[in-house]
Amino acid sequence: MKSNSKGLNQIGIVGLGLIGGSIGLDLQAQGYKVCGLVNRELTVKKAQSRNLAQVIDTDPKILANCSIIILALPLSEILNPSRELLNHLPINAVITDVGSVKVPVIKTWTNLHPQFVASHPMAGTHKSGVEAGQHNLFRNRPWVATPTRSTNSEAIEMVKKLAQALGSKWIIADPYNHDKAVALISHLPVIVSAALLNTATEDNDNLWYLELARKLASSGFSDTTRVGGGNPKLGVDMASNNSHSILELLDLYQVSLENLKEMIASKKWEELNNVLDKAAKTRSQFINN
Amino acid sequence: MKSNSKGLNQIGIVGLGLIGGSIGLDLQAQGYKVCGLVNRELTVKKAQSRNLAQVIDTDPKILANCSIIILALPLSEILNPSRELLNHLPINAVITDVGSVKVPVIKTWTNLHPQFVASHPMAGTHKSGVEAGQHNLFRNRPWVATPTRSTNSEAIEMVKKLAQALGSKWIIADPYNHDKAVALISHLPVIVSAALLNTATEDNDNLWYLELARKLASSGFSDTTRVGGGNPKLGVDMASNNSHSILELLDLYQVSLENLKEMIASKKWEELNNVLDKAAKTRSQFINN
Repeated sequence: MKSNSKGLNQIGIVGLGLIGGSIGLDLQAQGYKVCGLVNRELTVKKAQSRNLAQVIDTDPKILANCSIIILALPLSEILNPSRELLNHLPINAVITDVGSVKVPVIKTWTNLHPQFVASHPMAGTHKSGVEAGQHNLFRNRPWVATPTRSTNSEAIEMVKKLAQALGSKWIIADPYNHDKAVALISHLPVIVSAALLNTATEDNDNLWYLELARKLASSGFSDTTRVGGGNPKLGVDMASNNSHSILELLDLYQVSLENLKEMIASKKWEELNNVLDKAAKTRSQFINN
Repeated sequence: MKSNSKGLNQIGIVGLGLIGGSIGLDLQAQGYKVCGLVNRELTVKKAQSRNLAQVIDTDPKILANCSIIILALPLSEILNPSRELLNHLPINAVITDVGSVKVPVIKTWTNLHPQFVASHPMAGTHKSGVEAGQHNLFRNRPWVATPTRSTNSEAIEMVKKLAQALGSKWIIADPYNHDKAVALISHLPVIVSAALLNTATEDNDNLWYLELARKLASSGFSDTTRVGGGNPKLGVDMASNNSHSILELLDLYQVSLENLKEMIASKKWEELNNVLDKAAKTRSQFINN
């Protein structure tokens, strides 16, 4: 077991899905001792067969000697931790989470544990569950921490060490800015994209064109609708926990859409060209390819 | 030269960009004689070095002996053919096009040539220009023809032979249905996606979150904004030639978006779950992966 990296020796992970399982694989490869807490006996067996942690159990007692514990749970469970879990989090351990919205997590956890650091590793694949964990999921991906004035600075350092051990790019951000940023880049796209899919079913006057559209749909439609056609539960999770930012951005989005519509209706082709040109330039500031 | 396939022996292609060049490569590989008409001397040399056709010239006289001629030009040029080109299209040749909107093409060409067949091969890559043509671009992709009551049926058969020689799936559709279908699957996504990009620049109150959003943007944002960040000229081309269908669908889209917004604002999470679930099911009817 590694022992020169102060504090990170024994690491607890609550949940061994895509995020928790991937953390477990990489940390073990680096010589850390990893304890994984899961909900069901069946998951214990599957996680053991994939070597997601050295100690895997449904009993939260396994967290007793961990110096840092990562809550790698769905957002709804991070926001509603069980009493049993809370009773078994050592008071001296650093606790962090992986939830994609930070303000409600901070509101919940600030009073639950003195060493809590809210964080959000920005990584994912289309997979989920105990079969999904993989090596190097976090390499070169952002890991955002959103400490508040009351967050213990040594605890922040511990989470930073963890993120860096996984190869992430460490970013400190204000929780409100974080939640608005993910509303723009992750949550608004889900709503915009789902609305596009539902447009295809709201027009019942002419089914011939819809039948043809289904035959002709290709990469453009596929890309634009991918996130809107994703897991409904995740969509509701993010919408219900980040409503304020999403609604604020939806207002702006509706104005932006109405502008484009007005240009088409009024045949303002030069203006439309300029706005589409600006859109292309904006994209190049967000996406490097 | 192939001669057993009645009528397809000598084929003219006007424009040797992605579509025209790809048609030229595949047809030559099957033994057809291909004549490519281009605009500039420099393009002649580049197209020759890539063997996009056997005969390549800027002089439309090379089309004289062609039995079928494909207008592989941008939509705006298909809708505004030069007098010189029109004068050199043999009266007995079948003429077809590759434009992505069909009603205005039919309106223009019905009076210009007696053997015109409007068609739309649904294939593309991110590339364009004389360097872009590639083999097998059309294989297993739809090739939609939109004949009218006055379209010569033998001419339709010729275009079908061409499409099938390229490995396309042949589809006959009503031109209005075609234009509404492509509005839904290609044109509406461009507008919806461009509006999303412009949302990111309309909010100037808080630049911190935008700076963070740029660092965090990943595959979801990338996919949803890809078509909206494309070539502005192509966007204007499609919007100006398919306005009616796009505006009709934009109305439906705005209703669909407002519904989702209202569910979030009123915390109707079960309804939101149902609508997102419906969106996922709709997507699976359009996209096979």
